[in-house]
Amino acid sequence: MSENKKAGKKVLLVYAHQNPSPLDTALKTATEDELSKQGCTVTVSSLYNMDFGPRASGDGITGECCNPELFSNGVGAYDDCREKSLAQEITDEQKKVKEADLVIFQFPLHLFSMPAVLRGWMDKVLTRGFAYKTTESSRVTLLKGKLAISVTRGDHVWNDIKNTDNEDPLAYLWPLPHGVLHLCGFKVLAPQISSPPKLTSEEQQKGMVESWVKRLKTIWIEEPIKPRCTLKLL
Amino acid sequence: MSENKKAGKKVLLVYAHQNPSPLDTALKTATEDELSKQGCTVTVSSLYNMDFGPRASGDGITGECCNPELFSNGVGAYDDCREKSLAQEITDEQKKVKEADLVIFQFPLHLFSMPAVLRGWMDKVLTRGFAYKTTESSRVTLLKGKLAISVTRGDHVWNDIKNTDNEDPLAYLWPLPHGVLHLCGFKVLAPQISSPPKLTSEEQQKGMVESWVKRLKTIWIEEPIKPRCTLKLL
Repeated sequence: MSENKKAGKKVLLVYAHQNPSPLDTALKTATEDELSKQGCTVTVSSLYNMDFGPRASGDGITGECCNPELFSNGVGAYDDCREKSLAQEITDEQKKVKEADLVIFQFPLHLFSMPAVLRGWMDKVLTRGFAYKTTESSRVTLLKGKLAISVTRGDHVWNDIKNTDNEDPLAYLWPLPHGVLHLCGFKVLAPQISSPPKLTSEEQQKGMVESWVKRLKTIWIEEPIKPRCTLKLL
Repeated sequence: MSENKKAGKKVLLVYAHQNPSPLDTALKTATEDELSKQGCTVTVSSLYNMDFGPRASGDGITGECCNPELFSNGVGAYDDCREKSLAQEITDEQKKVKEADLVIFQFPLHLFSMPAVLRGWMDKVLTRGFAYKTTESSRVTLLKGKLAISVTRGDHVWNDIKNTDNEDPLAYLWPLPHGVLHLCGFKVLAPQISSPPKLTSEEQQKGMVESWVKRLKTIWIEEPIKPRCTLKLL
């Protein structure tokens, strides 16, 4: 891909570190620097700083809900009422997603999954009617063609499983790339996973940042991962 | 198992429906009724009613944090400071978990996973030092021998996948039973999954409640599911 094709691309970084380690900060800065160098615009949604409210209650709706009896987040009644009464916190996020060519989710693993604040962002922002539609006979992806990737910092438990249990740690990240993002039509790239800062040397951390920057250089032409899986009990 | 062995058992129902359908309410009532009939005590943590704050920020700590620089929820510094400064909201939940012989998680699927409020409950309540310990060479489960089960209401997307995609919907629930609960030492029973209320008749819903009640009658002697898996790309 030529420089021209990279230039002008829009990137949304959804950042969910409550207390970033130097490694998390270095990865975030590297993302902004490298992509800016390519001529891209990077917008950051820093969920803790924004005080994003993750609970899937009715607080994402400001006006009248079309069907308050049946209101629920996620796969809910959002499509009925989104035009007129989604809270600005939500529509702002949806606008950023809509404009983005690439969405990067940067978060630490919390007990085998993303933190609640990011889980809540997905429920409230990637709503039916905005991100996808389902009918009795089909699913329609509304965010087709955008790239998505998770930049995930493992924890002790992750590290432990990776080393000793012979389990595929990807199984735990599965609901993110293969459930949510695939449903919305994203082309999902393989996750960028780094080891916990406490278990790595400064030198190793420097290497992790460098390998992420190297990957960013060709991220626009990377092949997405396959969107299907089966789970097999051992 | 004799009636005597059931009697006196303690059950914690962690309930995460923001806007329960009649089916959700019926399943909850059936749980309470059947287990009370068996002589068990049922405690309900209704997360939306309790206004449980899911965000993994420092609000679970009231006193001084031992290492504020490094504070993080989930696999974090909680073990350092839990004795003296966990918020009462958290210690109350931990007490309920500690006393329980069986923990039931009842929730609707939100985009392939549990709702953020339940995700946050896990991060904040099932902390290192309370629920498990990890060292360089081993993991220690601190809630060993308790039973756990999820009573999950599918959504349109779940239903759709189940019918058309040949994917195993269990893949999406995996981080719950096989990540979090196994880590803590729970004996995890197969999830009880019901179809979305909108896609089922009143008669079918009655059947779903009946089958759950039937299962509850012998739940104390049920075989747990296997705690390992591999994920295979199609």
